[in-house]
Amino acid sequence: MATDTTSTPASGYVQPELDVRALTEVLDGGYAGIRDLVRSNLVRYASVLEEADELGVDAFRERVRELVVGMAATGQTGMGFPTEYGGGGDIGASIAAFETLAFGDLSVLVKVGVQFGLFGGAILHLGTERHHAAYLPDLITGKLMGCFAMTETGHGSNVQALGTVARYDAAGQEFVITTEGDHARKDYIGNAARHAELAVVFAQLEVGGKSEGVHAFVVPVRVGGEVAPGVRIEDDGRKMGLNGVDNGRIWFDGVRVPREALLNRFADVTAEGVYESSIENPDRRFFTMLGTLVQGRVSVGGAGVNAAKVALVIATKYAVRRRQFEAASDTEEQLLLDYGLHQRRLLPLIARTYALHFAQDVVRTQLHDVFSGIADDPQARRRLESRAAGTKALATWHATRVVQECREACGGAGYLTVNRFAALKADSDIFTTFEGDNHVLLQLVAKGLLTHYASEFEDLDQLGMVRYVTNLAVETVIEKTSVHKLLERVRDLLPGGDEWDQEAGLLDSEYHLAMLRYREEHMLAGVARRLKRGIDQKRDPGVVFSQVQDHVIAVAHAHVERLVLEAFVDKVRALPEGGNKVALGLLCDLFALSTIEADRAWFMEHGRLTVQRSKAISREVNDLCRKVRPLAVGLVDAWGIPTEMLRAPDLVG
Amino acid sequence: MATDTTSTPASGYVQPELDVRALTEVLDGGYAGIRDLVRSNLVRYASVLEEADELGVDAFRERVRELVVGMAATGQTGMGFPTEYGGGGDIGASIAAFETLAFGDLSVLVKVGVQFGLFGGAILHLGTERHHAAYLPDLITGKLMGCFAMTETGHGSNVQALGTVARYDAAGQEFVITTEGDHARKDYIGNAARHAELAVVFAQLEVGGKSEGVHAFVVPVRVGGEVAPGVRIEDDGRKMGLNGVDNGRIWFDGVRVPREALLNRFADVTAEGVYESSIENPDRRFFTMLGTLVQGRVSVGGAGVNAAKVALVIATKYAVRRRQFEAASDTEEQLLLDYGLHQRRLLPLIARTYALHFAQDVVRTQLHDVFSGIADDPQARRRLESRAAGTKALATWHATRVVQECREACGGAGYLTVNRFAALKADSDIFTTFEGDNHVLLQLVAKGLLTHYASEFEDLDQLGMVRYVTNLAVETVIEKTSVHKLLERVRDLLPGGDEWDQEAGLLDSEYHLAMLRYREEHMLAGVARRLKRGIDQKRDPGVVFSQVQDHVIAVAHAHVERLVLEAFVDKVRALPEGGNKVALGLLCDLFALSTIEADRAWFMEHGRLTVQRSKAISREVNDLCRKVRPLAVGLVDAWGIPTEMLRAPDLVG
Repeated sequence: MATDTTSTPASGYVQPELDVRALTEVLDGGYAGIRDLVRSNLVRYASVLEEADELGVDAFRERVRELVVGMAATGQTGMGFPTEYGGGGDIGASIAAFETLAFGDLSVLVKVGVQFGLFGGAILHLGTERHHAAYLPDLITGKLMGCFAMTETGHGSNVQALGTVARYDAAGQEFVITTEGDHARKDYIGNAARHAELAVVFAQLEVGGKSEGVHAFVVPVRVGGEVAPGVRIEDDGRKMGLNGVDNGRIWFDGVRVPREALLNRFADVTAEGVYESSIENPDRRFFTMLGTLVQGRVSVGGAGVNAAKVALVIATKYAVRRRQFEAASDTEEQLLLDYGLHQRRLLPLIARTYALHFAQDVVRTQLHDVFSGIADDPQARRRLESRAAGTKALATWHATRVVQECREACGGAGYLTVNRFAALKADSDIFTTFEGDNHVLLQLVAKGLLTHYASEFEDLDQLGMVRYVTNLAVETVIEKTSVHKLLERVRDLLPGGDEWDQEAGLLDSEYHLAMLRYREEHMLAGVARRLKRGIDQKRDPGVVFSQVQDHVIAVAHAHVERLVLEAFVDKVRALPEGGNKVALGLLCDLFALSTIEADRAWFMEHGRLTVQRSKAISREVNDLCRKVRPLAVGLVDAWGIPTEMLRAPDLVG
Repeated sequence: MATDTTSTPASGYVQPELDVRALTEVLDGGYAGIRDLVRSNLVRYASVLEEADELGVDAFRERVRELVVGMAATGQTGMGFPTEYGGGGDIGASIAAFETLAFGDLSVLVKVGVQFGLFGGAILHLGTERHHAAYLPDLITGKLMGCFAMTETGHGSNVQALGTVARYDAAGQEFVITTEGDHARKDYIGNAARHAELAVVFAQLEVGGKSEGVHAFVVPVRVGGEVAPGVRIEDDGRKMGLNGVDNGRIWFDGVRVPREALLNRFADVTAEGVYESSIENPDRRFFTMLGTLVQGRVSVGGAGVNAAKVALVIATKYAVRRRQFEAASDTEEQLLLDYGLHQRRLLPLIARTYALHFAQDVVRTQLHDVFSGIADDPQARRRLESRAAGTKALATWHATRVVQECREACGGAGYLTVNRFAALKADSDIFTTFEGDNHVLLQLVAKGLLTHYASEFEDLDQLGMVRYVTNLAVETVIEKTSVHKLLERVRDLLPGGDEWDQEAGLLDSEYHLAMLRYREEHMLAGVARRLKRGIDQKRDPGVVFSQVQDHVIAVAHAHVERLVLEAFVDKVRALPEGGNKVALGLLCDLFALSTIEADRAWFMEHGRLTVQRSKAISREVNDLCRKVRPLAVGLVDAWGIPTEMLRAPDLVG
């Protein structure tokens, strides 16, 4: 690398040395064992990356199923199920395994997610012992394939409005499942087009003519390989990516299932046709049921982070091999990564990937603790749901952005399928949509923030802000006093008084945290005020909401980014002294300052950045890029992605 | 749409009515005839959109060739060639045809670009009468297929450093073409893997042991369907998209071609082995040759704009059909496009697409005028080259961004191949790289700006800034005086004095233009100052450049964005009074203000936006979105994209 002693004033700065192996241990955390099992399975089945290009859709789907069953036999995919049914009994490990699987072909990943996460998770969390005994042993091995039939053509985000109906027929002690109109057909359902024998079907339960809301039922959709009577299945056809997963549509025409098919952990119907539930409030019941499925969001977020890593490894390795243009020398062209712009393009993305990795550690741990009964109370569940939603949104948008930037940074070579970006881009694209559209998820996060001080409203539906605003009770939530309280809190966030931030060191983590906390709380108070004003003025609540919506999304985004930074800062602080701690400290500073820089307009608009300081932050980001540059290869190597997963022989060498 | 009278103060604002047909005429401009021919050809061959999914790579390549030949027979693809060889003799029309073709399958588009733009363009512009007579008639019909063999594995952007060599053998009066090492193999060459009989090969010419720089040669690569002796061709294999184009690699092992194979418009070698050129300076010669190929960049830029339109039509039509969540009503769910956030996501993109459309009109006209001899002088050529590079960069990044946003705005449905985004995303991805990597192109633009006042340096190579900085002559370019002059000019840009912009109307186009001009000139002065300081301090020029590089890119971006706004403003001003003028005026304001808003941090940092005014601009953007909302469908309909090109039956209805 061309060095330039004048760029860094003699500050005693010493370039840290990375211990890559030790850094991998930090990143793998308590799950090194399961992650290494997945790594070896990925290598064993590495040919699937080429098969994804070479096989036709039908053959590739079969191949992916084969791999999933093969991996299941190693115990990799069943970690989240109870040991008495053949599972591993470790929810955290099941997420870690899933995350690691994202280094490989993403059809395999998503097929695993559909079978063990969505289908298996619904049986486990919504069903009771009779369902567990009947289905878990075979679904854990992959012998029994199933699908998760929630989304309909007409309703993805708004699950409470699903159109499929399950009417209780007391005479036959059966439920009759019916698709009421084409908008109510189940759609985009993974495993439906080909492999599922069973479906967990979400439908509006009707008992004695009364609607009891959405419940889940186990419905056979194939018998002996043939589509079951009364069921119609259509292939969703070719998709942008993930063509190893057989997505399809399902219609039900008066399909009868026994009373026991209701997944009855939270509600049941007696033989006589009496509806019973331990949760009285129907909204709360609905969200309790849906809440058990939060692991899907935690899984996808983690997968997004790891898919981004694959792209970054390739682009980084290419950038330290590829030379173009004689810049600093007349005889030799310069390495891409020695260009300031190239550093600016890749290094803050590496920093954010590390940040999201550690944020994912936190949400995975929360999930584990809640679902293992270590820390399971309503508040912990709410916190988990909000955090899972927000981390998923930021991590998957990050993946989309990273894959695109890295492809462009590899030029024409990046466009060849053999160089991995084609699959990464096409397959990961839908991560921002499935398991909850990212914008809808951020609205959910915002709702949680706004109702934080008013716990009686915690059962507001997760459609979130829309209905929330229309709710007349809104005035009780955002009382004038609480808005005032919010604004006071905002000032208290600056540890050394109102002017403290103007003098704080740019590389002080307390400064970074205070800035992100201030932004979050200030935005939150602003949204609350705007909503309140609209309601006070008796304006159309839908219009009020529509006009505040971008502000609502922004506050959620700010909240999650603050959590991500906290996770990174906490991690660095906990490390033992040494080169790795110094290196991750630089990276954490780079993440924090590039995050503040990206939103510096807001900070200036709200009096927390002077013009001079804003410019100083941009200079500091450039300086940090130069310091991180020599560490780049070690930082991406530490992710421990098997080289077989990279393909790209001409790019990574 | 939910209306809210309180949101727009009683300002006498009257919603304009669009005349969609008349708007299409404005957009089609002087090329309605050729555009309609392309539209009808697109409809005639509409099945290719499905065939792209259904056929294997080999069959699809043949199908695409068939289409290209079929379209050629209608005269659509030969508009840019002289009439005496069977062309249309209208360069502007050839670009308009190409742009319109981007509504359809993009493999067809790129195959047309390779055959008629790159291969045909090189024969036309670099060759002389003997080459024209020999090749143009058959290449215009598509009977003779060729390829454009410039890029090598080791060199894409840095064309002057190509490794292929053409040595003149005076004894045989032949050139001997040799690939010197695997880095010098031609790579990513469209038409190479299957269809090309001829290649225009760019190689370092050596005459009598002396290197004369890069020149182009016509080399047969296939004879009677078989690869020619001494030539080796390898298929590049599957790509992210554009799989109807047969990209490949070519090696030459001492391939001999006659002396007449040199495309000798600008330079020739006599039989005796004397090198002759009408352009003495080798750099200037090189860039003159390359400059003739500028039409490729103009073409790709226009294609990017039109690919973005396809995505926006689908997302907009979906957003006025799809309802989700009860927001303003208890009984009916709300249309997506009535959500503020959804308006924010789509409408500024529609505005920017219009802006880029009109900017493309300007650059297309410049190209036409230069190459038709209407206004052909060195300055006009330089202006054209800079503008083509900049417009291409902004238009293709816009396409990438629009396709992604629109896919996400269509949720899971957007992920199905039948709904068009899969192909749009995969096929258009490489637009940001081919015909010049966007970042390299913006450096070229910046170089032009920096040397504007020093015409003797206009021949600095287009590698641009890198070498420019290393050049000792730099001090003459950026004299202290001229830097001062720049700073004075900056102040003069505010028509009413230094404080004028603080009071100007937010919807005043003069204000928008002044802001973008100010940003550009201020950034330019800053870059010049930083470069000068680095050189004065005798720092390593490569390091100086590396540290200023993001600033260099930013100034070019600011420059092009200013040109784009000027094109839009000029267009609106020239329209006759009426609803269309009012509507495009709103759209132009939306483009201008959302552009300023996106860079408001810079404007605040440089004293041109107060905090209050910055916030007011964000409110105005929201307000403009609400005003444009009722016009959205008409605005996208006016693009005149045949419905057959949209597919997406479930999304657009």
